[in-house]
Amino acid sequence: MPGEPESSEVVFEGQVFSVARERWPGIDRPYDVAHHVGAAGVLPLLPGGDVLLVKQFRPPIRDSLLEIPAGLLDVREEDALTCAARELFEETGYRHERIEFLGGVYTTAGFSDEYVHLFWALTELEPRSEPEGGIELVRRPFREMTMAAKAGRIRDAKTALALLLADARGVAPVR
Amino acid sequence: MPGEPESSEVVFEGQVFSVARERWPGIDRPYDVAHHVGAAGVLPLLPGGDVLLVKQFRPPIRDSLLEIPAGLLDVREEDALTCAARELFEETGYRHERIEFLGGVYTTAGFSDEYVHLFWALTELEPRSEPEGGIELVRRPFREMTMAAKAGRIRDAKTALALLLADARGVAPVR
Repeated sequence: MPGEPESSEVVFEGQVFSVARERWPGIDRPYDVAHHVGAAGVLPLLPGGDVLLVKQFRPPIRDSLLEIPAGLLDVREEDALTCAARELFEETGYRHERIEFLGGVYTTAGFSDEYVHLFWALTELEPRSEPEGGIELVRRPFREMTMAAKAGRIRDAKTALALLLADARGVAPVR
Repeated sequence: MPGEPESSEVVFEGQVFSVARERWPGIDRPYDVAHHVGAAGVLPLLPGGDVLLVKQFRPPIRDSLLEIPAGLLDVREEDALTCAARELFEETGYRHERIEFLGGVYTTAGFSDEYVHLFWALTELEPRSEPEGGIELVRRPFREMTMAAKAGRIRDAKTALALLLADARGVAPVR
């Protein structure tokens, strides 16, 4: 199969994603693709071994969701690690002391090209500033959250993955 | 925060997803939401303990991807488990002997309401029919694939999650 469509027409253009109606050889209907800028997320571990999550209202699901800090790769020439570290600080007020790559995934390749780069970070002991407006910080023991992830009780895909990957990597508790 | 937007205007309508431009109190820009019908996926384990994955070209990412069998919840009144079992059979030719829930996740709640229900299944020993056109079956030892998932080398989010959840649940090798 070729790597590019026979034709691609932008049918919607938004700030975070656009939609193209594409024609592919061998597919007899138009294929709609949500082109997305990509994202980076980071699982923050406090020096004592707790994880730091953010709870915020997510309009698409009409509900609040418990997530790792994450954000769009929409700053020019910013790499994914720098993006993850910046989002960690902006959303939680905590700076990282170390940050390491866990893995990257296509979130939903059936209709979008969104790719999320996942990291874990060891944070400083104390925050430098307040969390972002609309964000509630949730601090929990790492083991409690990895158990929740293993039981299928974490509803956000990137957050469940980051917890399971960090657990497999044996990154915490740190001290 | 209220559970419904102040206004919502459909700006794109497709077969798999539609896009609404919504206005939310407290958010000073329009929020674009990709409304998606939802999906179900299943990690198939053969009686010997191998996993059965499907490799197929995914137009959105312009590349092939190794995934668990999965499909849209677009059949009227079909529940997620029945959908997963049907997709398993249609895509691989294998029928399930047992099928169990692993968990469900929002794949990318920042811009879409897509929710994926994840299952694992024990399949029959032999397939009943050929795999679906365009799909290559990939059969691998369960442990090899869970190691790949833990190392962050599975590129599809739902597939990485299903492998890690099945591993945590201790579902295989079966005999």
